[in-house]
Amino acid sequence: MNNFEYQNPTKIIFGKDTIEKLENEIPQDAKVLLLYGGGSIKKNGIYDQVKTALSKVKVIEFGGIPANPEYAKLMEALQVIKDEDITYLLAVGGGSVIDGTKFLSAAALYEGDTPWDILTQNIRTEKGMPFGTVLTLPATGSEMNSGSVITRAETKEKLAMGGPGLFPKFSILDPQVIISIPERQLANGITDAFTHVLEQYMTYPIGALLQDRFAESILQTLIEVAPKVLADPTDYKAASNFMWSCTMALNGLIQKGVPTDWAVHAMGHELTALFGIDHARTLAVIAPSHYKYNFDTKKEKLAQYAERVWNITEGSIDDKAYAAIDKTEAFFHQLGIATKLSDYTEDYEGTAEEIAKRFKARKWMGLGEHQTLSPDRVEKIVKMTY
Amino acid sequence: MNNFEYQNPTKIIFGKDTIEKLENEIPQDAKVLLLYGGGSIKKNGIYDQVKTALSKVKVIEFGGIPANPEYAKLMEALQVIKDEDITYLLAVGGGSVIDGTKFLSAAALYEGDTPWDILTQNIRTEKGMPFGTVLTLPATGSEMNSGSVITRAETKEKLAMGGPGLFPKFSILDPQVIISIPERQLANGITDAFTHVLEQYMTYPIGALLQDRFAESILQTLIEVAPKVLADPTDYKAASNFMWSCTMALNGLIQKGVPTDWAVHAMGHELTALFGIDHARTLAVIAPSHYKYNFDTKKEKLAQYAERVWNITEGSIDDKAYAAIDKTEAFFHQLGIATKLSDYTEDYEGTAEEIAKRFKARKWMGLGEHQTLSPDRVEKIVKMTY
Repeated sequence: MNNFEYQNPTKIIFGKDTIEKLENEIPQDAKVLLLYGGGSIKKNGIYDQVKTALSKVKVIEFGGIPANPEYAKLMEALQVIKDEDITYLLAVGGGSVIDGTKFLSAAALYEGDTPWDILTQNIRTEKGMPFGTVLTLPATGSEMNSGSVITRAETKEKLAMGGPGLFPKFSILDPQVIISIPERQLANGITDAFTHVLEQYMTYPIGALLQDRFAESILQTLIEVAPKVLADPTDYKAASNFMWSCTMALNGLIQKGVPTDWAVHAMGHELTALFGIDHARTLAVIAPSHYKYNFDTKKEKLAQYAERVWNITEGSIDDKAYAAIDKTEAFFHQLGIATKLSDYTEDYEGTAEEIAKRFKARKWMGLGEHQTLSPDRVEKIVKMTY
Repeated sequence: MNNFEYQNPTKIIFGKDTIEKLENEIPQDAKVLLLYGGGSIKKNGIYDQVKTALSKVKVIEFGGIPANPEYAKLMEALQVIKDEDITYLLAVGGGSVIDGTKFLSAAALYEGDTPWDILTQNIRTEKGMPFGTVLTLPATGSEMNSGSVITRAETKEKLAMGGPGLFPKFSILDPQVIISIPERQLANGITDAFTHVLEQYMTYPIGALLQDRFAESILQTLIEVAPKVLADPTDYKAASNFMWSCTMALNGLIQKGVPTDWAVHAMGHELTALFGIDHARTLAVIAPSHYKYNFDTKKEKLAQYAERVWNITEGSIDDKAYAAIDKTEAFFHQLGIATKLSDYTEDYEGTAEEIAKRFKARKWMGLGEHQTLSPDRVEKIVKMTY
């Protein structure tokens, strides 16, 4: 097991009818900017619940934050924060709204030239404007971590940021919110959380027995509840386990003391930037090819995953490892998620070369847990997804 | 799954040679009271590592905190805190030293008549004097939770306290500390952590699929590493998984959203108070009888535990559940832990009646996850341990 440090101060308020508890979490003297996305919260009743709970504090609203939160749009929100002397941010949404809010939390107190530097110069935020979240879509885990990914449309870039100042003060997780989520987004959420676990688990054995079992626990639970969540989002048992699994998949716990990969995300982000493919679907496109290409360095963990998560106990390590990749791909298909780039675009020729070029330009010369995934290798993996 | 709230702000610093990081965690202007136990830290080198790391801050020392931290002794330490204008506490020890430090953290800022009230009147501490810990004995999980148990010798009482103000600011966990721990205490630590998980798991199914799997993960890991830890405490892989499992067993995570029992602890505490039996050993005495007596209400979870943790897949639910109790008792025996009260004292007659009497006096009329374990039933369970 590697040495590690772990601290996660976010307060989780989990369960049925918990949105009303918002009232106790935001200081009475705060001036709140309520941030949300495309407006679905006004149709499904969440907006009304939030407004009722906030009736005693001053609230300004800022809607329209898109999936893959857009820099230009967020800069409009930043102007509102400054013009209105906002002191507290509240994200009501999924990972995109929460990630956008984290960027604003950092940008509101940033003293450099332009907030764009936070993204391009990897500036860690030690202290941000305080913010809370009401999660409306289980998927990214952003509600209990300090990381964020921001997109800039004009340059087709998707860049990560974070820091210990960017943990939400609180996050309210009411699993009942999934009732109004379209099936497509539920499938995305399951795929996103599942791949988050894989990124922190599918590397090589390092003797972190408990972390491995926790990771496998999340994968097993997602596999168990996925068909139930899709068939009947009012199934509270399935919904609550889905929601808590998504949070635990990326709140930092299972990555402590172990090597992590994250190359699937690095490649997937480019597919979203280039083609606008849903984030989760890009992960499902990249992951199987990535595991096949890096088979030799990952096969021990692939075989462990085969045995413990998929109950594949027959055959050699290689047999089990291959079977596990097939099972993973079949799981995505079962969710209605296609796993080839050519399923999403006819315009895929040249994509691998373009992504390799971008990685070279960013000097990302060695991704993955061994830092050996060069742009040339990335090119080969992306070609396998055509 | 039940509704829950979860927040755990303790910073964990885990791994080899991490005690030196102490220097960065305590404010330079602090006046520190360094608290420890019987002095083993002066023999095993931990004391020297701590003193070196603290060379830049003012430190007063207070040693001699006994196992089952004693109220009278802690009141001496409280006097030192007041006389010396201490601003920060540092526990260097196992659960007893850390629990004692939590009492002091609360008592130092308590404004009522006597700190004894904190224990007898169940006063929650919202704000305590800041403290950190250097863990020298994996077992209780006190290094990452906000609870404490204090003993008062003159009344033979053992009482619990806690509150959100009593999380350690940080805890340093270097698994190498177990090299100098006597085998008896290592066995106690394994038993203590194992029973902590059982108290939060061995109740009834409530659809908390992920929490169940996390609990089973800790049990599986403790079972896997226990013989290795006892055979060779220098086995770092075993030591590190043992240490992290003990912390995760009682840092609040696995109890969220599920019913919990804690009746084994309530009965066990009395055996320590009456006979001075090691805390962990009292749990191993009580648990098997407790599970047999409450078989009907616990058998579904006992059978799940049998299947997933002990790989007992044959037989009826009852068969599997009974076999799991036997396996648990055999596991304690394998660690060198006796599981009958009569193994520890010849003077056991009347113990069950005495404990039932104490529970009645404290108006503990319904313990356990169903709040149905009356003093009369407690009496029957304790008799089964003779």
